[in-house]
Amino acid sequence: MSNYSDILYAVDAGVATITLNRPDRLNAWCASLDADVRAGMRAATDDPAVRVIVLTGAGRGFCAGADMNVLQGIQDGDTSTRPTAPETPWDTSAHPDFQKQYSWFPAVPKPIIGAINGPCAGLGMVLALYTDIRIASDLAVFSTAFARRGLIAEHGISWLLPRLIGMANAAEILFSARRIEAAEARSLGLVNRVVPHANFATEVQSYARMLAVEVSPRSLAAMKREIWNAQLSGLGAAIDAANIDMKASFATDDFKEGVAHYLEKRPAAFSGR
Amino acid sequence: MSNYSDILYAVDAGVATITLNRPDRLNAWCASLDADVRAGMRAATDDPAVRVIVLTGAGRGFCAGADMNVLQGIQDGDTSTRPTAPETPWDTSAHPDFQKQYSWFPAVPKPIIGAINGPCAGLGMVLALYTDIRIASDLAVFSTAFARRGLIAEHGISWLLPRLIGMANAAEILFSARRIEAAEARSLGLVNRVVPHANFATEVQSYARMLAVEVSPRSLAAMKREIWNAQLSGLGAAIDAANIDMKASFATDDFKEGVAHYLEKRPAAFSGR
Amino acid sequence: MSNYSDILYAVDAGVATITLNRPDRLNAWCASLDADVRAGMRAATDDPAVRVIVLTGAGRGFCAGADMNVLQGIQDGDTSTRPTAPETPWDTSAHPDFQKQYSWFPAVPKPIIGAINGPCAGLGMVLALYTDIRIASDLAVFSTAFARRGLIAEHGISWLLPRLIGMANAAEILFSARRIEAAEARSLGLVNRVVPHANFATEVQSYARMLAVEVSPRSLAAMKREIWNAQLSGLGAAIDAANIDMKASFATDDFKEGVAHYLEKRPAAFSGR
Repeated sequence: MSNYSDILYAVDAGVATITLNRPDRLNAWCASLDADVRAGMRAATDDPAVRVIVLTGAGRGFCAGADMNVLQGIQDGDTSTRPTAPETPWDTSAHPDFQKQYSWFPAVPKPIIGAINGPCAGLGMVLALYTDIRIASDLAVFSTAFARRGLIAEHGISWLLPRLIGMANAAEILFSARRIEAAEARSLGLVNRVVPHANFATEVQSYARMLAVEVSPRSLAAMKREIWNAQLSGLGAAIDAANIDMKASFATDDFKEGVAHYLEKRPAAFSGR
Repeated sequence: MSNYSDILYAVDAGVATITLNRPDRLNAWCASLDADVRAGMRAATDDPAVRVIVLTGAGRGFCAGADMNVLQGIQDGDTSTRPTAPETPWDTSAHPDFQKQYSWFPAVPKPIIGAINGPCAGLGMVLALYTDIRIASDLAVFSTAFARRGLIAEHGISWLLPRLIGMANAAEILFSARRIEAAEARSLGLVNRVVPHANFATEVQSYARMLAVEVSPRSLAAMKREIWNAQLSGLGAAIDAANIDMKASFATDDFKEGVAHYLEKRPAAFSGR
Repeated sequence: MSNYSDILYAVDAGVATITLNRPDRLNAWCASLDADVRAGMRAATDDPAVRVIVLTGAGRGFCAGADMNVLQGIQDGDTSTRPTAPETPWDTSAHPDFQKQYSWFPAVPKPIIGAINGPCAGLGMVLALYTDIRIASDLAVFSTAFARRGLIAEHGISWLLPRLIGMANAAEILFSARRIEAAEARSLGLVNRVVPHANFATEVQSYARMLAVEVSPRSLAAMKREIWNAQLSGLGAAIDAANIDMKASFATDDFKEGVAHYLEKRPAAFSGR
């Protein structure tokens, strides 16, 4: 919980929580925050005690998008605070489409839960959409924002959003860039679940711990890779890849435990091996 | 509002409204209506004062589908009233998939709002689905119709409908060709919004004007192209294309205005440059 | 209704009903059940009196997934009860992706209605998702199950589920493998419709008979092929294929009847020719 200037990083009960921590700027995105999130995700990936990752925001917002100072810098020809694509992709063994500047969350081999605690806009929304599961506080508010800034559908949101909420809903919220309250976000399918703000952090951690305890971390890693890759392949390729993964799973301790705890009617104790 | 026999064409407050105008035939589709809609879309595209296009129907229906006289003509070997594919695609620079006989709405560089004022069936539903956003009157009724005519899923609806409402819902309404009232259409995701009929035209125009005023027309054109193209590409290609568009946007007046009106807390005044 | 050990097979009013019939094992999947379902689907395909197929379960469940004895056998090195891929795909003229071990329901040229009468888990859920339309009893309960067994997203569900309920919902229910009651299954889009259990069989048959009587069986076969193939192609290819099907449909008795019954305001009497 030390080397980071722009995030908080904490691990508890199998869950790493990465908190965007520029609350005075509504956690607006800049080069140093970008670097810290990458470092935090790397720490969570490398720590065998971590099975699930939560990404959330400090203070009253999740992420307001690109920092306005960055946007003004771009207009003034100063790009020093603008995050740049890293020299080495996050995971060079992942599908190339998950090696781009902001498309690498799918290459993180552990589930990422986006815990949307408040306003989530523009680039902040892009990042939220690259997480695997989204839980929102009832105080969360979403906006694609780009069209009101004279910008475009950035960093893959044109591809991602229609696959989450359908093409017409994606067009409508990209074109209008209007505010979307949590309840509508749920009904659009933008988030999986909405939780009253008073219980938000508790409910998020409770769900994340359930995943960390009740299901096989091996299964989670395989399934996350399968789901994202299957968005980029045909059905046959997805089946062939699954058959390889399935055969490998038959030889694991987690499969043995998965059958044993069921037949013995006791809680699972997965080792991840 | 002059050279058209089968549509009404009007421009007001940045919004071009194209009204299918064969109300005695529930605006059933035929060669002359097809030609007029193309001409109207061309006029709206070429007019710099137009930022948003509304497509709606005169009288109590949106579009009943192919004219029954056309269908009977096909059976009798007379195809003179059947719309034919134009010799030149609508936009030869668009993705080839948007250069087919009925798949060219996505190539129109301005948002098209389908304003579904009443019954919408068969080919009429195909056309409605190629618009970007659909707003329905609570008197709208939908039917794919084809299976009850002994026909098939025509003109790309087999591809389009599953991407709007999911594969199983698409199968169910294509197979059954049953009537779908406006409320169910909303819950299926077939339309973005349902409005009481008494306020329908007003609400449609109000939404269209909001788009014409509050967001950048440059952004709208780029986003529309991005969303449709991303349905036909992988994520990486969508990101690469977005990065080119994004860099171009940084140099525009609309981006300057997009940041300025936000910081100055005033309404936007986008020029589209 | 004779040669089958593990299913019931019955035809009535144009509807073939295939009932998984190992109720003491919650219809868990094994080699003999697999073989019987294939044989039943073949009988339904070949019988010209059959226009629609219903797949359901005997007793209180739909299908609990792979039989636990099979899973334990795999752990013990005994795979004799494990279903194996057939030597010849179900339909060698279908898209290759629909010729895999469990991906052949889309190659059956008649609509398959999954009638989910109770618990539906793991491999049972994969099979249910490969049907075209799902109707659930309000007593149905769903679980992907795999992650709690230490297994992975098997047999194409990683590809299929996101196209039915969106990527984030698919991730959530694959990761958590939690129980999903019928009402939530409906709101997720996992099933098309939920029916009170008391009326379940009646309502399913009523819907299936409507399809068997009111729409063209030729249309159903073409549309089913179109929808599934369009999941694996671009829009242009879907349009080109539809144009071929459309022209062929113009010459059929079913098209003639489709127009005639409409103009004569009488029920349709489609021959399927």
